[in-house]
Amino acid sequence: MTLDFPKSSGLVTAVIQDHATQRVLMVGYMNEEAFRLTVESGFVTFYSRSRQKLWMKGESSGHHLVVKSIAADCDLDAVLVEVEALGPGVCHEGYESCFFRKLDSGEWKVSEDRRYNPAEVYGGKA
Amino acid sequence: MTLDFPKSSGLVTAVIQDHATQRVLMVGYMNEEAFRLTVESGFVTFYSRSRQKLWMKGESSGHHLVVKSIAADCDLDAVLVEVEALGPGVCHEGYESCFFRKLDSGEWKVSEDRRYNPAEVYGGKA
Repeated sequence: MTLDFPKSSGLVTAVIQDHATQRVLMVGYMNEEAFRLTVESGFVTFYSRSRQKLWMKGESSGHHLVVKSIAADCDLDAVLVEVEALGPGVCHEGYESCFFRKLDSGEWKVSEDRRYNPAEVYGGKA
Repeated sequence: MTLDFPKSSGLVTAVIQDHATQRVLMVGYMNEEAFRLTVESGFVTFYSRSRQKLWMKGESSGHHLVVKSIAADCDLDAVLVEVEALGPGVCHEGYESCFFRKLDSGEWKVSEDRRYNPAEVYGGKA
């Protein structure tokens, strides 16, 4: 039984959840190589759709995601990766989670404080 | 500030999480209309990529997902929907969560018991 990479042009959706708090931290995408590298290295590696290249989370920031467990969904086109998130936050905008905006009366509003200053961590890098 | 539907051919990724247990239950996709219906009705509605139509979760099974909160990610191309899941499980295969298989020594293994008999709930329907 293998993941269904062909279904979505070679990618599966990867939901990243903090193994201790159960907070959902981010969503990324993995091609077959990114998934293999994630399993083999124990560090989450995505395929960046915008940059069209492999991207080990934390390669710029040092905020790596250490794999604790990996589950697959019924259709085998999405994975749920429980992680230990190194560093103060996974979001490149400085937040603990990329899901830092909540829908409030029809508007997306920032619902928490930044954990770090992204300019200090990422410098000029995207 | 609006969701970035054009980025992925009109769809955003929707992660569904149980608001009480914080378990991730499933991943689906929403087009703009599915998202609007989800917000307006308070019941999660997806866009089925395989059937190419709107799909209110539970329309066959009665296992609706009641919206508790909606968050958007930094790129505005994914949403995290916290829900109260009606019924014994969200997965059409009978499990509480669609993520019922875990990677164990390189093999996907079912890691929990079924909550209901899908043949009784769905009959001959997919």
